[in-house]
Amino acid sequence: MDCEKISGGKCAIAHGVARVGDAWSMMILRDAGLGLSRFDEFHKSLGIAPNILTRRLTMLVDQGLLKRRQYCDRPPRDEFVLTEAGRDYLPILHALSAWTQRHFADRQFSQLVDAQTAVPVEPVVVDRVTGRPTGEMVLRLVESGLSEG
Amino acid sequence: MDCEKISGGKCAIAHGVARVGDAWSMMILRDAGLGLSRFDEFHKSLGIAPNILTRRLTMLVDQGLLKRRQYCDRPPRDEFVLTEAGRDYLPILHALSAWTQRHFADRQFSQLVDAQTAVPVEPVVVDRVTGRPTGEMVLRLVESGLSEG
Repeated sequence: MDCEKISGGKCAIAHGVARVGDAWSMMILRDAGLGLSRFDEFHKSLGIAPNILTRRLTMLVDQGLLKRRQYCDRPPRDEFVLTEAGRDYLPILHALSAWTQRHFADRQFSQLVDAQTAVPVEPVVVDRVTGRPTGEMVLRLVESGLSEG
Repeated sequence: MDCEKISGGKCAIAHGVARVGDAWSMMILRDAGLGLSRFDEFHKSLGIAPNILTRRLTMLVDQGLLKRRQYCDRPPRDEFVLTEAGRDYLPILHALSAWTQRHFADRQFSQLVDAQTAVPVEPVVVDRVTGRPTGEMVLRLVESGLSEG
């Protein structure tokens, strides 16, 4: 992945993609959101090759989405927990889950539910101020910092 | 990317990641959402190697996010436009844009605005029914199709 190339511009989407733009990173974040934190847990959950897992964990730490926390002194062992930015990434995966449910309904997927009420949630991306789904709006990208205000 | 591995389970997040889990695919979808459709337009916008662009466009067609449309008879030339599923993926990129703005404010990014009013939008992922941000909820994944209802 050519992150340098992708993150070079001023587009916030491109910059976000450059930070978490690969499948394994997203899967690791999903698992971290479900409470997994140790190398062996991710390894078992994802069936990912150890060297790839190590690389992705290191990248997610470097990008500010995971942080290391030592859980064992001897031998020294780190686990990986979500930073604030990492936890705040999870709703993007919630929206992705809802997108899959809407468009590939020929398969039965596991469902996101409220852990307290067990009621299914239906994630949708809206504008915080108006509540309008952004998918129903015509949006454009403008350079920021140009206003007089 | 080991899509087969990732999409094997019943998790809708994993299935979504397997369909659009790489940086270039997300960037192509962003550009398609901004109105780009032709190979040369994507090539110029992204600075991506032609063989990689060809592979990604083909993959996005196969995955149901783009469709081919012939815009020239002689020589035959196709452009690539968003399917309904592809267009519905764009709000995920809106949420990603907002995430970047929130957490990496040390840089100035271009901003998503309402094309009609020029008012900035602030995408947030909420539960459609309750309006609660999903990031503030405790969610879990359950197998679907098991309820009696």
